[in-house]
Amino acid sequence: MTGNLNFLFYPKSVAVIGASHVQGKIGNAIMRSITRSFNGKVYAVNVKGGEIEVNGKKFPVYKSIKDIPDDVDVAVIAVPARFVPDVIDECGEKGVKGAVIISAGFKEAGRADLEEELVKRARKWGIRIVGPNCLGVTNLENGFDCTFNPPERQARPPFGPIAFMSQSGAFGAAILDWAARHEVGMSKFISLGNMADLDESDFMLYLKDDPKTKVITAYLEGVKDGRKFFNAAKETTKVKPVIILKSGRTEAGAKAAASHTGSLAGSYAIYKAAFEQAGVLEARSMRQLFNYAKALAMQKPAEGDQIAIVTNGGGAGVMMSDGLLERGMRLAELSEATNEKFKKAIEEGKLPEHMSYRNPIDIIGDAPSSRYEIAMRFALEDPNVDLLVVIALFQSPALDEGIVDVMERMQEYGKPIIFVAPGGRYPEEMARRIEKKGVPVFETVEDGVDAAFALVKYGKYLKELKEGV
Amino acid sequence: MTGNLNFLFYPKSVAVIGASHVQGKIGNAIMRSITRSFNGKVYAVNVKGGEIEVNGKKFPVYKSIKDIPDDVDVAVIAVPARFVPDVIDECGEKGVKGAVIISAGFKEAGRADLEEELVKRARKWGIRIVGPNCLGVTNLENGFDCTFNPPERQARPPFGPIAFMSQSGAFGAAILDWAARHEVGMSKFISLGNMADLDESDFMLYLKDDPKTKVITAYLEGVKDGRKFFNAAKETTKVKPVIILKSGRTEAGAKAAASHTGSLAGSYAIYKAAFEQAGVLEARSMRQLFNYAKALAMQKPAEGDQIAIVTNGGGAGVMMSDGLLERGMRLAELSEATNEKFKKAIEEGKLPEHMSYRNPIDIIGDAPSSRYEIAMRFALEDPNVDLLVVIALFQSPALDEGIVDVMERMQEYGKPIIFVAPGGRYPEEMARRIEKKGVPVFETVEDGVDAAFALVKYGKYLKELKEGV
Repeated sequence: MTGNLNFLFYPKSVAVIGASHVQGKIGNAIMRSITRSFNGKVYAVNVKGGEIEVNGKKFPVYKSIKDIPDDVDVAVIAVPARFVPDVIDECGEKGVKGAVIISAGFKEAGRADLEEELVKRARKWGIRIVGPNCLGVTNLENGFDCTFNPPERQARPPFGPIAFMSQSGAFGAAILDWAARHEVGMSKFISLGNMADLDESDFMLYLKDDPKTKVITAYLEGVKDGRKFFNAAKETTKVKPVIILKSGRTEAGAKAAASHTGSLAGSYAIYKAAFEQAGVLEARSMRQLFNYAKALAMQKPAEGDQIAIVTNGGGAGVMMSDGLLERGMRLAELSEATNEKFKKAIEEGKLPEHMSYRNPIDIIGDAPSSRYEIAMRFALEDPNVDLLVVIALFQSPALDEGIVDVMERMQEYGKPIIFVAPGGRYPEEMARRIEKKGVPVFETVEDGVDAAFALVKYGKYLKELKEGV
Repeated sequence: MTGNLNFLFYPKSVAVIGASHVQGKIGNAIMRSITRSFNGKVYAVNVKGGEIEVNGKKFPVYKSIKDIPDDVDVAVIAVPARFVPDVIDECGEKGVKGAVIISAGFKEAGRADLEEELVKRARKWGIRIVGPNCLGVTNLENGFDCTFNPPERQARPPFGPIAFMSQSGAFGAAILDWAARHEVGMSKFISLGNMADLDESDFMLYLKDDPKTKVITAYLEGVKDGRKFFNAAKETTKVKPVIILKSGRTEAGAKAAASHTGSLAGSYAIYKAAFEQAGVLEARSMRQLFNYAKALAMQKPAEGDQIAIVTNGGGAGVMMSDGLLERGMRLAELSEATNEKFKKAIEEGKLPEHMSYRNPIDIIGDAPSSRYEIAMRFALEDPNVDLLVVIALFQSPALDEGIVDVMERMQEYGKPIIFVAPGGRYPEEMARRIEKKGVPVFETVEDGVDAAFALVKYGKYLKELKEGV
């Protein structure tokens, strides 16, 4: 049983074992990260003792965790591998509940024996382990961040609904930096490391019950225990979406994975089938992972695969049609009643004569936000429409900023909406404003296709689950 | 015969027919665009006469182009469709060589007759036509820009080696804005419009001989004349790469295209085969189009499909391996001599013990630029390596800025190099610096895969052409 891992993400007090005053050392970098915005207490531990200054604040250095005159919930360990088992014993005596072991030099370096020893000691004391050989964990909610890359090299994303676990620490760091740059909000980040104790399934089950996480994402080269993973995933996807970027899909990739994390990447066909059966969405790239995650974090799954497109650019509508069909979705056939509404609105001069109201609904280049509103309402009111994709080419000066409030209003229909705004700085600025109203915005047509796919695919899975298919 | 279209892109003097002093009118917006940085003379024409002020400068308004006391090379026409044929006659009398017809209301609006009349008149005078129903053309070299979106909505990219033609004006505008945002340099942009006279093949042949264009890209829904296109493409790809994003690939997309540009999108299988035979690279998305274009504009095509990867992150190396193999490329098997070099450097302490020198070459997370240099040299010196992919996770503070100069030096081997730097602001900043040294940098692994694919695929085409396969 995994149980609740809140003690790992919401510690009241943390000890950094191997804390250093030497700039550039990992034990120094962790002290910097962890004292930046964490709302709990931080203690420095190093056999050398003394005092260290971090982020302008002085910390006494305890020679052993046992000397700390306070309870300690979590130990972050960054001492040479050979000392780690004894450090775990000291943590045990102190009553520590969880240890994040940053230190490398275990199984990945041919020292499986040292890793086994470590686990044995931790089990004895009931300590749960993250890692070893990992980048640490980050809780974006309370600022508990024991990763060690400096902020000028790796920015931290804002707090938000997406959790991410990574079997690659370096790639995890790149993802955090990327998410920060694109203002993608994250709840918790976990660098899995060697998974000597806690593995991807344990964290998945914890995140399933984490109220701050709406979508669970992961980069994996291989799972630790296939059956455990499958069961955990099946349980989790009933509650919230799980998106996995699995690498080591090809022979060369699998070989590289074996030398990287020692993962037996295994037959990709088996992974694929397991993901499909367990309702896990498989992403093929980093961008796709986040397109899926953003869509599912901000919109509810679609009840079917019939999509309506409203666009002020014909070409983008054609590309979107291709993209949706090539990914197995359908363009909604608008009902006769909807066609009549469009005809009438055109006759009354509320919509322009030269527009096309066959799906894709092309409201043409000079469309203001009011025209978007009319067309979107007609589409959303149509029972044949399960999901609406809105494309806005903001390069046209006719498109006013009223679109932000219009998009807020469109959500009253309770149908999922995806917004696509290709281009440069102005669309980017509008995107962030529209997202504040709850509608996810994507930079390109292909990103929008991903987003629609995720909502349709996960919606279909949930529906089949309910119907017991 | 198309001949040289330089007169259209390098006019000494231009008349804007339909120039307006009313803000928000297209004839006003064109005057603004065209007077912003164009190095030639601009004349305003409007039957109303008078004077207009644009960008702080006063222009007399001629009632007819014939009243302009100077030669006029190009007329940009933005008057109601029904007046256009007569305006063409006036242009003819004036000796105008080319007309860019922005006006809509021709074939796309059911007035094929008006379009035919227009062409008949233009032929009589020997005037070449861009459009009608187009966004205009932009020459980023001399500032001749008759597109009408305001700069705060649609930025203009810097001058550079990529030409772009678009059958969709609105999407073309989004592409310009996107390219500006991502600092992708463009030579010439052409909004094709209805292609009543000049079509995609004519412009392709012109751009083939344009010394300022290294790569030709296009968004097309359908070509105007299949045979003409095929021959033009075959001629052009011998000289420089042609990359086409063809939409209307699916049934729904083709229907949408028919209603958008009236293009008979035709069987996609036929397009696909024609592209393949003519050496045209087909892009499936906007981002892929630019990944291909950037790679081919900055690096020479690869002589084979054997790729070496040098990375400071194992996970990214695994993902890159998968991506390359899934797109039909191979990981280079490094020669015995190269393995020996690595072994020796490790023994001598120049490279770390725990690195992997099997391809992907993983120089691990604490790699400084000097370690990149050693590993990259070994890879580039290997006769089994046709192309080098370098992955740098700049989140690691160990990676110093010396990498910029290292990348400059690596080009001495004459082999194509692709650089991938995932993450946020810092990698983005480093990317621009490395690109100034001539190596293209991509944001994600999947973008880097695209880039490698373009260099390998076009290289293979050129090789087969040479060998007469």
